[in-house]
Amino acid sequence: MEFTAVSHEPKYRDSYALDAQTLEIRVKTKKGDVQHADLIFGDPYLWEDEQWVKHSKAMHYSGSSEWYDFWTVRIHPLYQRVRYGFTFRSGQQTWTFTEKGWYNEPPKDTDEYFCFPFMNAVEVFRAPKWVEETVWYQIFPERFHNGDSSLSPEGTPPWGSKPPTPSNFFGGDLKGVEEKLDHLIELGVNGIYFTPIFKALSNHKYDTIDYFEVDPHFGDTDSLKSLIDACHKRGIRVMFDAVFNHSGFYFPPFQDVLKHGSESKYKDWFHIKDFPVKTSPAANYDTFAFTPQMPKLNTEHPEVKEYLLDVATYWIKEFDIDGWRLDVANEVDHTFWREFRMRTKAIKPDLFILGEIWHDSMPWLQGDQFDSVMNYPFTEAALDFVAKGRISSHTFAQRIAHILHQYPSPVHRVAFNLLGSHDTPRVLTEAGHNVSKVKMLYLLLFAFPGTPCIYYGDEIGLTGEHDPGCRKCMVWEKDQQNRDLFAFLQQLITLRKQHSSFSPQADLSIEHADADTNLLVLKKTNNNKEIYLVMNPSFHSQSMNLSFFESTHKETLIEEGITFENESIYLKPYSFFVLH
Amino acid sequence: MEFTAVSHEPKYRDSYALDAQTLEIRVKTKKGDVQHADLIFGDPYLWEDEQWVKHSKAMHYSGSSEWYDFWTVRIHPLYQRVRYGFTFRSGQQTWTFTEKGWYNEPPKDTDEYFCFPFMNAVEVFRAPKWVEETVWYQIFPERFHNGDSSLSPEGTPPWGSKPPTPSNFFGGDLKGVEEKLDHLIELGVNGIYFTPIFKALSNHKYDTIDYFEVDPHFGDTDSLKSLIDACHKRGIRVMFDAVFNHSGFYFPPFQDVLKHGSESKYKDWFHIKDFPVKTSPAANYDTFAFTPQMPKLNTEHPEVKEYLLDVATYWIKEFDIDGWRLDVANEVDHTFWREFRMRTKAIKPDLFILGEIWHDSMPWLQGDQFDSVMNYPFTEAALDFVAKGRISSHTFAQRIAHILHQYPSPVHRVAFNLLGSHDTPRVLTEAGHNVSKVKMLYLLLFAFPGTPCIYYGDEIGLTGEHDPGCRKCMVWEKDQQNRDLFAFLQQLITLRKQHSSFSPQADLSIEHADADTNLLVLKKTNNNKEIYLVMNPSFHSQSMNLSFFESTHKETLIEEGITFENESIYLKPYSFFVLH
Repeated sequence: MEFTAVSHEPKYRDSYALDAQTLEIRVKTKKGDVQHADLIFGDPYLWEDEQWVKHSKAMHYSGSSEWYDFWTVRIHPLYQRVRYGFTFRSGQQTWTFTEKGWYNEPPKDTDEYFCFPFMNAVEVFRAPKWVEETVWYQIFPERFHNGDSSLSPEGTPPWGSKPPTPSNFFGGDLKGVEEKLDHLIELGVNGIYFTPIFKALSNHKYDTIDYFEVDPHFGDTDSLKSLIDACHKRGIRVMFDAVFNHSGFYFPPFQDVLKHGSESKYKDWFHIKDFPVKTSPAANYDTFAFTPQMPKLNTEHPEVKEYLLDVATYWIKEFDIDGWRLDVANEVDHTFWREFRMRTKAIKPDLFILGEIWHDSMPWLQGDQFDSVMNYPFTEAALDFVAKGRISSHTFAQRIAHILHQYPSPVHRVAFNLLGSHDTPRVLTEAGHNVSKVKMLYLLLFAFPGTPCIYYGDEIGLTGEHDPGCRKCMVWEKDQQNRDLFAFLQQLITLRKQHSSFSPQADLSIEHADADTNLLVLKKTNNNKEIYLVMNPSFHSQSMNLSFFESTHKETLIEEGITFENESIYLKPYSFFVLH
Repeated sequence: MEFTAVSHEPKYRDSYALDAQTLEIRVKTKKGDVQHADLIFGDPYLWEDEQWVKHSKAMHYSGSSEWYDFWTVRIHPLYQRVRYGFTFRSGQQTWTFTEKGWYNEPPKDTDEYFCFPFMNAVEVFRAPKWVEETVWYQIFPERFHNGDSSLSPEGTPPWGSKPPTPSNFFGGDLKGVEEKLDHLIELGVNGIYFTPIFKALSNHKYDTIDYFEVDPHFGDTDSLKSLIDACHKRGIRVMFDAVFNHSGFYFPPFQDVLKHGSESKYKDWFHIKDFPVKTSPAANYDTFAFTPQMPKLNTEHPEVKEYLLDVATYWIKEFDIDGWRLDVANEVDHTFWREFRMRTKAIKPDLFILGEIWHDSMPWLQGDQFDSVMNYPFTEAALDFVAKGRISSHTFAQRIAHILHQYPSPVHRVAFNLLGSHDTPRVLTEAGHNVSKVKMLYLLLFAFPGTPCIYYGDEIGLTGEHDPGCRKCMVWEKDQQNRDLFAFLQQLITLRKQHSSFSPQADLSIEHADADTNLLVLKKTNNNKEIYLVMNPSFHSQSMNLSFFESTHKETLIEEGITFENESIYLKPYSFFVLH
């Protein structure tokens, strides 16, 4: 077997406590190399007759990525501590892998083995339970609904009368959101993620001027209190956007530095290279990307840290928000985020902390920083597969397996899964305006471990390219909404609430992923209840035999474009069904 | 090439900032697979003509373990942030490896690449500078010197008159240490690591009764103040042992729980499974190992946390200690250690925090917890190689390369390297009483990146098996000391202080490691100054040609058992020299 392919990161990616009694351990081997894997384990201090007391437990094969097979096992160490290694059967041979290397036989000494020294309860990855039950809805407030035109910026054109540009305004506001809560309730969502609502110059508000003030075009503290109150009364949680990596150009401390230079008492609040501060030809201070309008905050500075942590706790204490989504979270230091978690969870233990990170996020998901990250790797895989037809179901299955083995499994229960956001083209546009594709994508979104998020307007078929296209005004005229798509999403949301197999606790496995026909069959299992999700992500009609499911039971929970005939199932292009 | 062998852990083992401007990046490939490796990198936000601006820099081959080749490179990202990937030349083919997988050509989009989002200064791994200049000396106080016999336990026999047992006493104390500081100064060490000195029942004091009191057999706060003062005056730093994983059986809070059971206000200070508390047949509470005398402390409990952090800061504030060595550090929760670091460094920023962990310690060495760990993997490799003759120089070189690529390089500068401790047999015993072997081991110890620690008595040739053998009384009669060994260590310590090539900043590389002859040649380089360390760890005399060193210069910094004759060097068994 290929020894060099085998890797295992203890107490990080590959071994972690599910609770104070249960340890989950994973290892990867070269694809096809290994027929059977066992965990060998024992208490580090348990010796009898000078022999270390070892046990063995078969690992289960938990999927394959492009290059690797994954193996997973759960154990319950009696004294919350364990030393362990792996034995692999490859053809006629058996090998043992430990922290110290490879052996023909399991080594005798505990020192050779991987170590999980103690399962301290405080280190169990624990995201708020309510998040698992949440279906998110993302609102970009400037474009949702104009509830109070007296607040709108001067010269605001009629709602939706023009295409969105990077800088124009349409007058969406908080009152508008509150007026339209019925729409959200009708859809069935129970969590709103608001892009920023604090005072800022732009329409997107990612250039904060005042972290303690509601943007006057959006409303005031009264309208915000009213909105949050209305949301909570209707069972909807509220998550705000924390833009702590950078401020806006007109943030008073930055203006003070512009004015007073090295004399400013805020001079260390940013990363200024030299004085006087200049913005052109290039900014002589760190910025978000290369945007002089967004000076990077020095989150290592005690005053800045205190200021931002005050912001973070203020909106929890005063407005009872339920979550913070952290903008550009990866560029802010870990030390700040650790303190952020301690300070916010101290006043609201079930606050949800969601980081915006697009790449591998393991360094932020060790339990000391974020509860979750925005799962763009899922987005990319799903769009490549269904919307763009770039990868086969076989490749998609490998991508899924890779994603699911990238982080400890408790992280996936609250993964923030999405098909698009204010930072991407809209899903219907990505899917070439093919509504069947979009429905199939939503089925995948709802089937994937974690929580789904719907970007405002996607549920009624809004289209749009990358920013500014994806930020157009919500369409409220029902005859201009895709009510079929809306009804489909309603159905999915209901299923998720009613069927335990759709819940984030359910296990997802790939039953069939055919590179030729492209047919994909997923299975979700929870407490011995099973459902099958069958998809035909191709432009060809196909058929399959009902006997595949070891049952002739034909009850579907949801279906699109399929017909049953005797023992056969006929699937139109981009059709799918969920079998109970 | 073998794709599956290649791995890279960003912002953890394999990429890290050396300072706010310099990033070090490493990757491993299957041994022999790759002839050339390049890093491809660029600013995440720098695009020109819709093309991402990428650069390329050759990585240097930095060693080989048993199965892998390692590649390392340093870059200076202009805006402290970078996306990166690797290209490998393997035979006639070139491949690109990124976070998303393998490609024939470097992919165009930044999203595919590994990400180091921002080099926040606070996250640069920073251990106290003074540690790099420190040569440690470990003292087990009960066995070093009896300076005040009035403090000795009743019935203490004359010093060294009996073999040590797990429970006997010889009366060593703090005054004894102070009286013998001349010995340490003569040797040249400048840091003492004391095993515990707080009030406890046993001779080793790992079963604390009172964390705020000096053990009365050792002295009192006056004798401690006097000792620390004397150390500091003579340039010697002082590190204490923090036994925070468990208390002693007679720790009053535990006694209170024994007495009052579930009514005790300390009932949650431990991990008690049910009441009443019992110690036999098995303890119904968590313990260190299976030792009922050492009940595990509940370091998640706010009162316990506060109590222990008070202990940690008290001895710094009141006694100005310079370091804490953390006993059984791996079994205490990370959350506790993070707070420990914050609280102690807040009052003494250059405090040294050393964890006792024998296995892979990456989860504790991310900059938020420990400065260093006890480097037993080095101990094992060095003893296997020289003392026990179990592995060849070739295998030893592979073990070294593995160790050095296991953690970020800044961690190695303050690695706590040792050949033995109160928890292992003594080095002379491990070496079968062969003093030449011991000298060679010390040469390796001093050549290895990090700081060396000498276990009391090893410098004058004490012997002893595993505890209790290794804890015998220090021998102070000079005619019973091995003064030759002592002089050799003096010489090594002087070299380390005077020659920059011996400093922890120097790079170590393996020049020659011959599986047949077993000859080992190491090179240490610092600021273009080079030294060669040549060792013959075998029972055979050997010769080598001086031309090997591209110089006929014969100045040795230290030598043992060698003769030069014309262009040849003759090496007796277990001989060695360091060539300037």
